[in-house]
Amino acid sequence: MRMNDLIAKKRDGLELTTEEIRYVVFEYTNGNIPDYQISAFLMAVYFNGMNKRETLDLTMAMRDSGDVLDLSQIDGVKVDKHSTGGVGDKTTLVLAPMVAACGVPVAKMSGRGLGHTGGTIDKLESIDGYQTSISEDVFIKNVNNIKIAVTGQTANLAPADKKIYALRDVTATVDNISLIASSIMSKKLALGADGIVLDVKTGSGAFMKEEKDAISLAQEMVDIGTGAGKDIVAVITDMDQPLGKAVGNSLEVIEAIETLKGKGPDDLMELCYVLGSYMLVLGKKAKNTEEAREMLKDVIETGKALDKFAQLVEAQGGNPEFVYDTGKFKKASIVMEVQSARSGYVEKIHTGDIGEVALILGGGRTTKESIIDLSVGIILHKKVGDKVEKGETIATLYANDPDRLSEAKDRLLSAYDITVTPAKADILVKWIVSKNGAKKY
Amino acid sequence: MRMNDLIAKKRDGLELTTEEIRYVVFEYTNGNIPDYQISAFLMAVYFNGMNKRETLDLTMAMRDSGDVLDLSQIDGVKVDKHSTGGVGDKTTLVLAPMVAACGVPVAKMSGRGLGHTGGTIDKLESIDGYQTSISEDVFIKNVNNIKIAVTGQTANLAPADKKIYALRDVTATVDNISLIASSIMSKKLALGADGIVLDVKTGSGAFMKEEKDAISLAQEMVDIGTGAGKDIVAVITDMDQPLGKAVGNSLEVIEAIETLKGKGPDDLMELCYVLGSYMLVLGKKAKNTEEAREMLKDVIETGKALDKFAQLVEAQGGNPEFVYDTGKFKKASIVMEVQSARSGYVEKIHTGDIGEVALILGGGRTTKESIIDLSVGIILHKKVGDKVEKGETIATLYANDPDRLSEAKDRLLSAYDITVTPAKADILVKWIVSKNGAKKY
Repeated sequence: MRMNDLIAKKRDGLELTTEEIRYVVFEYTNGNIPDYQISAFLMAVYFNGMNKRETLDLTMAMRDSGDVLDLSQIDGVKVDKHSTGGVGDKTTLVLAPMVAACGVPVAKMSGRGLGHTGGTIDKLESIDGYQTSISEDVFIKNVNNIKIAVTGQTANLAPADKKIYALRDVTATVDNISLIASSIMSKKLALGADGIVLDVKTGSGAFMKEEKDAISLAQEMVDIGTGAGKDIVAVITDMDQPLGKAVGNSLEVIEAIETLKGKGPDDLMELCYVLGSYMLVLGKKAKNTEEAREMLKDVIETGKALDKFAQLVEAQGGNPEFVYDTGKFKKASIVMEVQSARSGYVEKIHTGDIGEVALILGGGRTTKESIIDLSVGIILHKKVGDKVEKGETIATLYANDPDRLSEAKDRLLSAYDITVTPAKADILVKWIVSKNGAKKY
Repeated sequence: MRMNDLIAKKRDGLELTTEEIRYVVFEYTNGNIPDYQISAFLMAVYFNGMNKRETLDLTMAMRDSGDVLDLSQIDGVKVDKHSTGGVGDKTTLVLAPMVAACGVPVAKMSGRGLGHTGGTIDKLESIDGYQTSISEDVFIKNVNNIKIAVTGQTANLAPADKKIYALRDVTATVDNISLIASSIMSKKLALGADGIVLDVKTGSGAFMKEEKDAISLAQEMVDIGTGAGKDIVAVITDMDQPLGKAVGNSLEVIEAIETLKGKGPDDLMELCYVLGSYMLVLGKKAKNTEEAREMLKDVIETGKALDKFAQLVEAQGGNPEFVYDTGKFKKASIVMEVQSARSGYVEKIHTGDIGEVALILGGGRTTKESIIDLSVGIILHKKVGDKVEKGETIATLYANDPDRLSEAKDRLLSAYDITVTPAKADILVKWIVSKNGAKKY
């Protein structure tokens, strides 16, 4: 097989065989095909696309380029959740204990990644003692004992995806639905769960700005998952404003804990009920989403979900008192309230800009080597549709570096659009996408 | 300027500015942009093309990436000829002395290149003593004194093209009209002539198999030349069978000499009259092609063109006796006649296969390091339309390595299609393409 011929084949709109796709992926990962041939190939894919079969083959090849976790020693149907990412998305921290409290095993390996805040693993490190790297043995034992473990990725997952993604990022070949879907799904499939619930974000703060693009991506991923023999469903949700009120690592953990107590923001709570319902159904713990929602409400109201979180923390070496007394979290040294310069209604919050504020304050990574400041962040007191008076506090900044405060404040103020006419937030849950297609929620 | 943005711009079908194109070409040549970004860029160009302005800018940038010859010290209007290449194409060896004998200065720098035979320079080295690397001073002096010099490329011509072409060759991005035309024209323009006559081949033995593609390429190159301020015309000619009868280095020089004596094959002679006519018109030596053809016929009939070739050989250190006595050329040690196995008419000669025979015999280069055997090759005694009897000699092979003979013979026989029904050769000169468009010849 010659790579030049395979580039020409895709360039000419022909379908690649399974064997050809695996050749491209494995030989590139092994360093036997140079970057310059793969980037030309990716651009040909950008123009001519890949059909469902090719996309599934690409995903499976990237999955198989590294370790594939074997969760067979864990009892029950393992269900994973994946979000395409957004600002203030602390869903995993709430969902995982809720679902585990209902009896579905949650074996979660999470990445750190680059972004305006850290990943789930970084956030959990704001709890004293929490270990984010435990052995695979302990990981499996914990899930069997208490139904939950949340750890960093120790395995070498989908190295082909890592290498291909890095190349796409510098060759203008990111925006192709087959490449995006296969990139996400190769890593998800390597994690070995039986069922997968996808949270695909749409809106100004999401990768997919347009609802129709989010639906296409969701369908592509659901089809890949189905093709790989998984039970899978995708929920299209709003990311036109940050989720919940907290943006920043420890601030988000605190908000997650409040939500587990039933005192969290409405949007976050609702999203956890919706995603959790599908997880219980896929995990064979509930016949349908209505029954599942009742089960989830029960573990919130009885405090079982909160206790499950404390159990998780304790099992991984952390101090469970943090869960019952959030005053124990390390505080930022500077707290600054930001007031509105005008009266009116919040019409829009530029979500990306709120992420930028968190990054300016030091809450995220710009390079893999960046050190995250876990205590900094933002609490949004006003969200879309809220009435606001001139001089009223719209947000609070938590910072440790006084030099970054002024820029953060300016950026925050410009992220709010306030109008005189009443405004209304977009609906949170928009579509459900299954192997049978998309339907309105 | 960020290369990633420029890839995205071309990917999205937008027009690149002159400044952007020069950035891509120069920074790539300097090693500041990696191969993998350029290959993705080239694939985007493959799909979205370049408009006339972009193509001209690309050509000029590649030209300016290296030396641009200054021929201003040469008196008169300098006219160059370029062929897109084919099998048995020894036109330059005939044309250059013909045109010089008519008073048009011929300042020819020629490459060696890879192929089934060597380039013009390699062929000339079959004449004892001929120097293919003379200084620029001697080059210019010779053209001023005797109107002709033919030498190898000493200058660093269009290094950007060399680098980009090497990358296109391994990334399936060769077949784009803007990229092909700019590649050829960047080198041509760097050679500094005032006028250019292009011989664009079409047919089974040419890069452009289809006539319409040859016309498009010719128009693209003519438009580039016009945009660069040159007088330029392209002639579309047949390469559905080899040109003339000789294929091989010294064999082609001998055939060129015979043609200068007026005793060459008809197709080669006619092509030299057609191309030469346009060269005289562009060189302001003739008012029109009819007058030019008369002048060219005259220098053949009076022996002035042959004498001019002898003058060229002598001026560059070669033995001019070779021109008047072709028995002096070194002979191959093995001469094998190949007989037809059947009677009929030659319907087709698979031109590429004839080139392969020359390569098998050792007449060409497969890598830059290959050493060419100048004396080997083929003489075709039968061409398309000729009647042939069973047992009649259709070709003679000239070889030095007996081990290669059998493969060469088999290949040669299979290159001939012989049918019972009379066949006819395609017309030689098909179209003339100028800045005003293409017209039938």
